Amino acid sequence: MDISALPRTIELTWGSDGRALLTSIDQRRLPSQLTFQHLYDYVSVIDAIKTLALRGAPALGVGGAAAVALYAINESESSGTEELLSELTTVKSIVAKARPTAVNLAWGVKRAFDVACTMSSNGALLDEIKKGLFDLVKELEIEDEATNRAIGAYGSDLLAPDSRILTHCNAGSLATVFYGTALGVVYAAAEHGKIARVFADETRPVGQGVRLTAWELARVGIPCTLICDSMAASVMASDRIDAVIVGADRIAQNGDTANKIGTYGLAVLAGYHNIPFYVAAPTSTIDLSTTHGLDIPIEQRTPSEVSPYEMAGVDIYNPAFDVTPAALIAAIITERGVFSPSDIVSATKPCEDPCV
Amino acid sequence: MDISALPRTIELTWGSDGRALLTSIDQRRLPSQLTFQHLYDYVSVIDAIKTLALRGAPALGVGGAAAVALYAINESESSGTEELLSELTTVKSIVAKARPTAVNLAWGVKRAFDVACTMSSNGALLDEIKKGLFDLVKELEIEDEATNRAIGAYGSDLLAPDSRILTHCNAGSLATVFYGTALGVVYAAAEHGKIARVFADETRPVGQGVRLTAWELARVGIPCTLICDSMAASVMASDRIDAVIVGADRIAQNGDTANKIGTYGLAVLAGYHNIPFYVAAPTSTIDLSTTHGLDIPIEQRTPSEVSPYEMAGVDIYNPAFDVTPAALIAAIITERGVFSPSDIVSATKPCEDPCV
Repeated sequence: MDISALPRTIELTWGSDGRALLTSIDQRRLPSQLTFQHLYDYVSVIDAIKTLALRGAPALGVGGAAAVALYAINESESSGTEELLSELTTVKSIVAKARPTAVNLAWGVKRAFDVACTMSSNGALLDEIKKGLFDLVKELEIEDEATNRAIGAYGSDLLAPDSRILTHCNAGSLATVFYGTALGVVYAAAEHGKIARVFADETRPVGQGVRLTAWELARVGIPCTLICDSMAASVMASDRIDAVIVGADRIAQNGDTANKIGTYGLAVLAGYHNIPFYVAAPTSTIDLSTTHGLDIPIEQRTPSEVSPYEMAGVDIYNPAFDVTPAALIAAIITERGVFSPSDIVSATKPCEDPCV
Repeated sequence: MDISALPRTIELTWGSDGRALLTSIDQRRLPSQLTFQHLYDYVSVIDAIKTLALRGAPALGVGGAAAVALYAINESESSGTEELLSELTTVKSIVAKARPTAVNLAWGVKRAFDVACTMSSNGALLDEIKKGLFDLVKELEIEDEATNRAIGAYGSDLLAPDSRILTHCNAGSLATVFYGTALGVVYAAAEHGKIARVFADETRPVGQGVRLTAWELARVGIPCTLICDSMAASVMASDRIDAVIVGADRIAQNGDTANKIGTYGLAVLAGYHNIPFYVAAPTSTIDLSTTHGLDIPIEQRTPSEVSPYEMAGVDIYNPAFDVTPAALIAAIITERGVFSPSDIVSATKPCEDPCV
């Protein structure tokens, strides 16, 4: 297992022309081509997010903050901090709405906006605020990897040697700045020789499993078996799965968790087969303003993702996410420890010692 | 609902050149094109079966018998009945092995072989046996539709008005000579105004749901919602499904049922959501020589059906079928009535009155 074989998913740098530059893997082109997008303005970031060139809840958090930073640094012509803040209020609202389900996007945007507000309140100059936004994104990048490595370490402790893991969608390094959440657990466990194999659901309709997870695992050198989503039950029944680990796009107060469509069914199947079902996610995925799963908005995407055929009388239903009730989740693995879903709110509270 | 909008799937006729001709829908080309294959020899039938141009357990039964008939009528150069029977022994064995899971194929081949044997024992001449094989296929065609209509009538009685049905793969008219098994139930129920909508799983990796079931339902005029296989759980949870009805490729003595990969998971999910899970199949699908589901051979198909990408370290698992334990099946709907899976053997026993 060689984690260094993975490129960073998203990175903000200063370009030679003095502009800020967001470089991110164009995930639409994987696994055929590893190419990068170079984004200079917030609308391009929104476009990358909407087209799934940039995706994955934690990566969207950093991407959201970066969009605000790009606007402030490269696009704003405001002559004063008041004016900039007013513009950022609009930008914040537009970026946060690019995709509705993953709360990390709104979280990242808010982190950036709050930095600008606080600095402005403290009398910072325009250029200082711009630099402050750049520095925040760099901090979030570092924080993301540290968070994922902590999730990995906590999650690894839950696994026995030679574990065979089933995952859905891509909650890997590609869904984050680096290292991954669900796959972060796999990587950390692999470093302790605990991973025998990962079964990757192909994850229809967009194919994050076949295109991203399989690519990532092949690249680091972890044995992977790709299956169609409908094969998971059969694989579980034949006693080939020791644990299911998935990521999350939003976790409600009561532990109900939104994640890629198909996750809920997988949780039911895992329960039926007595296989522990884990969610691995940073605490930024916990949305205290959402009481329970039913309140999580579910993004509906275009029918053409599901089928190229148009037939009169045939509707196509294409929700991008579903909600897994807390009761089906064995534990939620965060950077602050492993929590029972019913106790997930405590993961968001300040504490001195690890909250395990 | 207009069932007459559907073409017959498979039909044996006499060609103008005196040869027997099997005409079957090329199901690889649906839904884009409705085209027919014209088959004159048994190897072409095997090829059609292996490439899924001709598929569906009941249709394979008739196709298997037709392959034997085509050989005898068009290909054999034997000068006596003994010689023909010897050749048919070989042909029988080759055709029956074209696909291993659906027992109907072997059943149809055996029906044809038995007719030839019986006629030979009774002193029939070579040409009489050839005509007898042709007549058998025509009988099986008629029997198939009558069987499906009976399955439909029995199944319809199980459904309430305005039922919303979820189905997987294609157990429709296209899987049979005409009318269908699982969709036969839908069609019969629709004639009584009992069908509000059918949710069709797309059925990865081959797409029988998106390509065949959606096409069939659109053609007869039954409202259909196409979903990815992984969305079924979410649709069930949102209280939009009243019953799940699927076909079968082989039913063991104890009621365990092999069907398209994904069926087993669907049965678990239906159980979890308290939705009745029905199997609709002719009694020819019951294999008394198979004690339980674990004994059913599961066809493994090429990885390229699942993914176009080849990556070192990434295996692809592609079983075409899975086995649903009898305990998850509410009832098996046959042409002889509705049976509890645990009592399915009684469906194969002769009886005078309907075996309901």
